[in-house]
Formats: sequence, structure tokens, C-alpha cells
Amino acid sequence: MMFTAQITIMPLKELLDPQGKAVQESLHTMHLDSIQDVRIGKHITLTIEANSKEEAEAHCKAACEKMLYNPVMETYKIIIEG
Amino acid sequence: MMFTAQITIMPLKELLDPQGKAVQESLHTMHLDSIQDVRIGKHITLTIEANSKEEAEAHCKAACEKMLYNPVMETYKIIIEG
Repeated sequence: MMFTAQITIMPLKELLDPQGKAVQESLHTMHLDSIQDVRIGKHITLTIEANSKEEAEAHCKAACEKMLYNPVMETYKIIIEG
Repeated sequence: MMFTAQITIMPLKELLDPQGKAVQESLHTMHLDSIQDVRIGKHITLTIEANSKEEAEAHCKAACEKMLYNPVMETYKIIIEG
């Protein structure tokens, strides 16, 4: 069966996100002052061939742990869609 | 009221995503061959001070249209959380 995975990788809350900070300041110069706490991460979509949702999630987790995310600076969340 | 927005910005389906392609090939060399169609985009979280969910969404949309996404190459999706 084919599954689709939505992976969100964000910088850890404890860390400064300079890219987000820069975007926030630019938005303020555009008079969008109501926007705060901008944080920028990655969104990855992929399809997985697996026998079950659990197997698809395991493969996806392996991909994250082995390659996609940096545990020192980031956190990740996986959503598997049928 | 404070609202949290989750914005996902992805490369258009019609376009090649070289970053995703490179990641997919690297995953295959790590024996994760079940993974296909890798596409990499951005995930942005931000908080918005607004009087209603509709107003928060309008501000968020303005930020996307004015700055965060490139209509030639990308598509975006906004989720506003209470």
C-alpha cells in the first residue's frame, strides 16, 4: 500500500531562529505589526510503500533519524496519511 | 486575542524539486528504497494579535502574499489555531 507522510522539522524552542527573526522584522516594516514569534523550519512530503501504517511510520522515522533532522537543533513531527 | 498560524509553503507540483530529489537518492543509498516522491518546502509558525480568527487569517494571508511565498514556484496553505 502507498502512504503519504507529512514531516515538519522545526528549530528547537530554546534556540534563537535568526531567519525567523529577520522575516518578522521585515513584516513589521511592512506594517504587519500584529505578527510575532516567527519561526521557520522545513516541511517534507514523501510517499512510502509499506504493508501497514505502522511500517510506513517506522520507515519515515528511520529517514528522519538517519538523515532529515538534526537532533541538536531541531525537532520533528510525522503525520502519516492513508 | 492571540492566534497561532501554521503556514506550509511547498514547491508547485509541476516543478522539479532538486533538493527533494537529492534527499530521495541519499535515502535510497541508505536502503530506504520504499520512500519516493520526496518534496521539500518550508514550514512557518507565527503568532498573530487579532480580534477574530478571520482577521488573523487575513493578516497571515497578507504576510504570505507580500513576502513569504513566491507565486511563480510555490503554493501555500494556512492553518489558524485558536
